Amino acid sequence: MTLILSNDDVEKLLTMPDCIEALETAYLDLAEGRGVSRQRSDCITPTTWHEDAVYGLKSMDGVVPALGVSAIRINSDIITNPLVGNSRRRVKVPAAPNERYVGLVLLFSTHNGEPLAIFPDGVLQHIRVGATNGLGVKYMARENACSIGILGSGWQAETQLTAACSVRDITSIRCFSPKQENREAFATRMSEMLGIEVRPVAQPEDAIAGADIVMCASNSIDPIFFQQWIEPGMHLSSIKKPEIEPSAIRAADKIAVHTHDTDPVLIVAKDAKFKETSKQAGWNTARQLDFKSYPTLPDMIAGRFIGRDSDDQVTCFLNNLGLGYQFAAAGSVIYKRACEQGVGHQLPTDWFTETVHP
Amino acid sequence: MTLILSNDDVEKLLTMPDCIEALETAYLDLAEGRGVSRQRSDCITPTTWHEDAVYGLKSMDGVVPALGVSAIRINSDIITNPLVGNSRRRVKVPAAPNERYVGLVLLFSTHNGEPLAIFPDGVLQHIRVGATNGLGVKYMARENACSIGILGSGWQAETQLTAACSVRDITSIRCFSPKQENREAFATRMSEMLGIEVRPVAQPEDAIAGADIVMCASNSIDPIFFQQWIEPGMHLSSIKKPEIEPSAIRAADKIAVHTHDTDPVLIVAKDAKFKETSKQAGWNTARQLDFKSYPTLPDMIAGRFIGRDSDDQVTCFLNNLGLGYQFAAAGSVIYKRACEQGVGHQLPTDWFTETVHP
Repeated sequence: MTLILSNDDVEKLLTMPDCIEALETAYLDLAEGRGVSRQRSDCITPTTWHEDAVYGLKSMDGVVPALGVSAIRINSDIITNPLVGNSRRRVKVPAAPNERYVGLVLLFSTHNGEPLAIFPDGVLQHIRVGATNGLGVKYMARENACSIGILGSGWQAETQLTAACSVRDITSIRCFSPKQENREAFATRMSEMLGIEVRPVAQPEDAIAGADIVMCASNSIDPIFFQQWIEPGMHLSSIKKPEIEPSAIRAADKIAVHTHDTDPVLIVAKDAKFKETSKQAGWNTARQLDFKSYPTLPDMIAGRFIGRDSDDQVTCFLNNLGLGYQFAAAGSVIYKRACEQGVGHQLPTDWFTETVHP
Repeated sequence: MTLILSNDDVEKLLTMPDCIEALETAYLDLAEGRGVSRQRSDCITPTTWHEDAVYGLKSMDGVVPALGVSAIRINSDIITNPLVGNSRRRVKVPAAPNERYVGLVLLFSTHNGEPLAIFPDGVLQHIRVGATNGLGVKYMARENACSIGILGSGWQAETQLTAACSVRDITSIRCFSPKQENREAFATRMSEMLGIEVRPVAQPEDAIAGADIVMCASNSIDPIFFQQWIEPGMHLSSIKKPEIEPSAIRAADKIAVHTHDTDPVLIVAKDAKFKETSKQAGWNTARQLDFKSYPTLPDMIAGRFIGRDSDDQVTCFLNNLGLGYQFAAAGSVIYKRACEQGVGHQLPTDWFTETVHP
């Protein structure tokens, strides 16, 4: 049977500790050259949806022999590029029937090639970002780190905290987010979810001062963490290239990135009115850094790079780019749990296989 | 509703003339820079299937705004590399349950992004190769071409003949294939299918002498058509790089290739026992040619290159590489006909879309 799962299923089936463990296994496979990851590609063309929109077909894939799976993640997007303030944002429009987005993961077996499951990418997309930075915390933060200062109050902030709390005994969290109502609602929700007091604060410095772990979890295209805020022993964590100013990154004693994979292959049709958002100021600042010069998370997991040598070192983990590979790793857990628990629509595998030689 | 179709459905729904027409529209879109095509990628890793096998995850995609669709083709293969004679072949093993192969096409709308259909790639894979060479015949063979000599008797030969007969009034066909029983069975079957006498012959020269159109439809990795066989006015057609010897190609007055897209991006895991078959002698011969120096099929369709100026010219079309783009173009016809005829399993589109922002 091939399983069709929903985001609700994925949310119930995949715990953060399970996801972190699967990614850890997968990154070791990647570091040892057995797993492979294919760079994301984006095809951009005109669409009839709206004259100011474009159509985007995005795909990324990876194979994790250690977990017996491969996956391809596909996004079929209607995208607009509105100006927000001085900067242009990339906004996906839920244009599919019932105002929905289109993002799918197809999971296959590396043992016999069979299609194991098809599920949406939305919930997993969030969890895998958290799990990746969680591994950054595991390999780089002080063993006794117990306090977090987080900048941001969106879904990224939620999974970042959940992941950090999975790998360290966290007892205190402070959250800054520009809008008071957002940070307060987030603090209330996360306090309950984590069983740890999350305190909303009105200035970023109030979240950061004295924190063992600083997590940037914004959608900002400009730096939100600055060098003067660094304290000895801090672990800095970022989910987007521009969040931490380059001088702050360079000031760290130990720096690691998620991957050396390069930016997506972008194939843009001549008539597509597409403004590449990454050509904004904040991203240009990030381009001062040579991400390939830093060791990767798989390097740390394989023991080729030690994330921290002493308690007073400042460490910095940059989740610089996502990988289809992560969807394969986490997908293996989702599939295993779905089979154990009988979750999902079961369709005949023959519907997705063939007798004709392809 | 999102449609799940079978190879049988595809075979019934997609006629060769429809496929040729859709590809023609799509190639014009590509030539004019509106359509985009993403180079194939192959991820190769170890598999637990057999120690001498590898696992391969292959994907290719394309977007055809003129037809309102995009598609990604995915193959999840168990591959062996047996030695056949002196050369190594790439053999896919039907390892999925019920001894089946795994090749899928996902079709999306460029209007609103929605997933329109999912179907196996096997039958379409065959038809699109035929249709592509059919367009070569349409744009390069003499208007009054009426005879075909074909080398090969497999599935490629079948779709090659069907395609050529869709674009020229063919009255006579001769077929050579090394095994007598194969060429005779093929001739009998195709005579009935096409309503044109297909005559089996014992030597390649007997098929070729006097033919207006010569079609190579083999799985050979060495040349099977040679310069000395060329006659004035002939159109030469090939489905694989090594089939026509380079000197014969160079002897043609007009030469066109399918695409300037480069060879697949190959990502091979360290431990995968993978012998790249394209490093064989025949392929090395083909590498004497700079395929990018020749105009493409889209160039011809857009009128930038004239495939033939006079009846005595020798023309040559090389279908050098397949594209995911072809699956999108033909997929648009399959989907349209399936909707018209109520064919396929209808699943709720909500199963393949999401409310969570990806």
